[in-house]
Amino acid sequence: MTDARFMSLALALGRRGLGACWPNPAVGCVIVAGGRIVGRGWTRPGGRPHAEVVALAQAGAAARGATAYVSLEPCAHHGKTPPCADALAAAGVARVVVALTDPDPRVNGQGLARLRAGGVEVVEGIGAEAARADQAGFLLRVTEGRPMVTLKLAASLDGRIATASGESQWITGPEARRLVHAMRMRHDAVMVGAGTVRTDDPGLTVRGLGARRQPVRVVLSRGLDLPLDGQLARTAREVPLWILHGSRAAPERIAAWQETGARLFAVPVSAGQLDIRAALAILGAQGLTRVFCEGGGSLAAALLSEGLVDEFAGFTAGLALGAEGRPSLAAMGIDRLGDAPRFALVETRAIGADVMHLWRRQG
Amino acid sequence: MTDARFMSLALALGRRGLGACWPNPAVGCVIVAGGRIVGRGWTRPGGRPHAEVVALAQAGAAARGATAYVSLEPCAHHGKTPPCADALAAAGVARVVVALTDPDPRVNGQGLARLRAGGVEVVEGIGAEAARADQAGFLLRVTEGRPMVTLKLAASLDGRIATASGESQWITGPEARRLVHAMRMRHDAVMVGAGTVRTDDPGLTVRGLGARRQPVRVVLSRGLDLPLDGQLARTAREVPLWILHGSRAAPERIAAWQETGARLFAVPVSAGQLDIRAALAILGAQGLTRVFCEGGGSLAAALLSEGLVDEFAGFTAGLALGAEGRPSLAAMGIDRLGDAPRFALVETRAIGADVMHLWRRQG
Repeated sequence: MTDARFMSLALALGRRGLGACWPNPAVGCVIVAGGRIVGRGWTRPGGRPHAEVVALAQAGAAARGATAYVSLEPCAHHGKTPPCADALAAAGVARVVVALTDPDPRVNGQGLARLRAGGVEVVEGIGAEAARADQAGFLLRVTEGRPMVTLKLAASLDGRIATASGESQWITGPEARRLVHAMRMRHDAVMVGAGTVRTDDPGLTVRGLGARRQPVRVVLSRGLDLPLDGQLARTAREVPLWILHGSRAAPERIAAWQETGARLFAVPVSAGQLDIRAALAILGAQGLTRVFCEGGGSLAAALLSEGLVDEFAGFTAGLALGAEGRPSLAAMGIDRLGDAPRFALVETRAIGADVMHLWRRQG
Repeated sequence: MTDARFMSLALALGRRGLGACWPNPAVGCVIVAGGRIVGRGWTRPGGRPHAEVVALAQAGAAARGATAYVSLEPCAHHGKTPPCADALAAAGVARVVVALTDPDPRVNGQGLARLRAGGVEVVEGIGAEAARADQAGFLLRVTEGRPMVTLKLAASLDGRIATASGESQWITGPEARRLVHAMRMRHDAVMVGAGTVRTDDPGLTVRGLGARRQPVRVVLSRGLDLPLDGQLARTAREVPLWILHGSRAAPERIAAWQETGARLFAVPVSAGQLDIRAALAILGAQGLTRVFCEGGGSLAAALLSEGLVDEFAGFTAGLALGAEGRPSLAAMGIDRLGDAPRFALVETRAIGADVMHLWRRQG
């Protein structure tokens, strides 16, 4: 097998950790000796141990003289564990192939330098494009201080998410809903606006997939006018619930929500709305790398308008609701087609009776 | 090869005539002798000669003792040509395999009866499901007196067809637009509402595909308030233009449009709108079997509300326009999800930078 093939295995292993490793990146590692895989590892839930440590433990003495394929530059700093770069060199690994350097200022080439200093041959850039897609959330957190955002919208053929009377369950079928739960599981957090909480009383948990770790539930609500007797309030001690509210929300509401077990964060308000960039900066500072936004229309429009949607997961159901139906996006103030946020198609396929289409931000 | 394989060839040949044979059905025929194909035919533009006649001419003497695969029951009546059932028997064809009987009261089993009376073995129902899909327009015209309707909508990720200022060119890319022209070519007519004519001044012709026959252009306009200096008026003598107007449209407008070379049809008005069922009945009576509707939102909503959309061709472009954008469908008065018209997915795939999704009416 070629370097590219082994790296694609390391990348696939790394993806297993997406949604479970934050604030750390989800990394994969394959150790190959004499053409045979002697060690495989991926970052464990919570972000430790790192992929390289897991793979080295599996390889044991076979790591001596072997090649290690790692989807992200091994760490160079003493955190809660010793640097992986040192561990690879100490195990006698002869060659390390890395897809991407880690822009974290504590690493940023120093992992590779430590390897080279330890007499290890280093190859960079194999599988870099796929690694950049997998690590998009971690890279954005390190370089821009915000998590990546995936926006999911499930709508009718004419882009409506509910009838005029608010009926929305269910527009898409069970297969699409199951895929949405799998997508939630691959993200660190699920995020919705206050209107969605008031209308749908959602649980926002991953159900039916044997998830052992639930994504953080994030709600944006300027005035904190959320039902204290709903699903979120009832379960705030079991599954993390973070509420981002306007800095002038009523203190008694803040107190009542803190009482439920939720964590509260004050966000500046601009033009009557929560400042969405500031909100994402807070989430980034808390360590979130991947946020799955499920609407509603106002939050989705705000994210799109600010160019903050990195992936768009659309589900189109085979029914028509007409113009009285609730729109999937609120007003965005776009007058010229050239000003619209644009996405490049990644994939489209049938999911049960519905169409799934996945897009990535352009430019 | 099996009967089913030969029939699927006949069906594929028949589809070549879609859009060009009305008021006749687009039929395909394959004649097989000793396991070899000795004749192939499909209904010629304008509906004559019929597929069987073309295939028999190609087969010549080889038709004696052969099997003919025909996608629709051979005709039994003397029209402008003698009955195909007689021609097959006279050529000595030993066996005729038919996908579907022709519900036209002048045929309706009599073609098969004539074949059997002529000593020909007849097999029915091979490839019936595919034939029913291919012949949907012809079957609807014969059984319900209306053409089949394909509704095309090209919209943004949130179901908008233009910005608030009306900019709509181009939401989808050149590949999708080319596919739309190919779809026009497979229909007998292209149909739009008056608003689309006023806003877009469309030509509604098939361009760039070497089409030798243009679909009829159908415009629905209650008040006939259409621009007499637009593309349609200028080309009404070159490409058929049919205008369906309200029975109380101003006589001077009727006269002015007749002057351009357009054909005019008066349609009853109900609840302030053209009666869409009556409009389709007029098109059916004129012999149209397949109509490709390209909007706008009011016409599309009227067709959907009345359950008159048989196929839905959706194009989704990777951009977001927000709630000020023009909706793809006007109001439909739907309050319950259970009341929405539903479609079953036939196919989805990437077309250039866009997603194409094709649906068929459910129930």
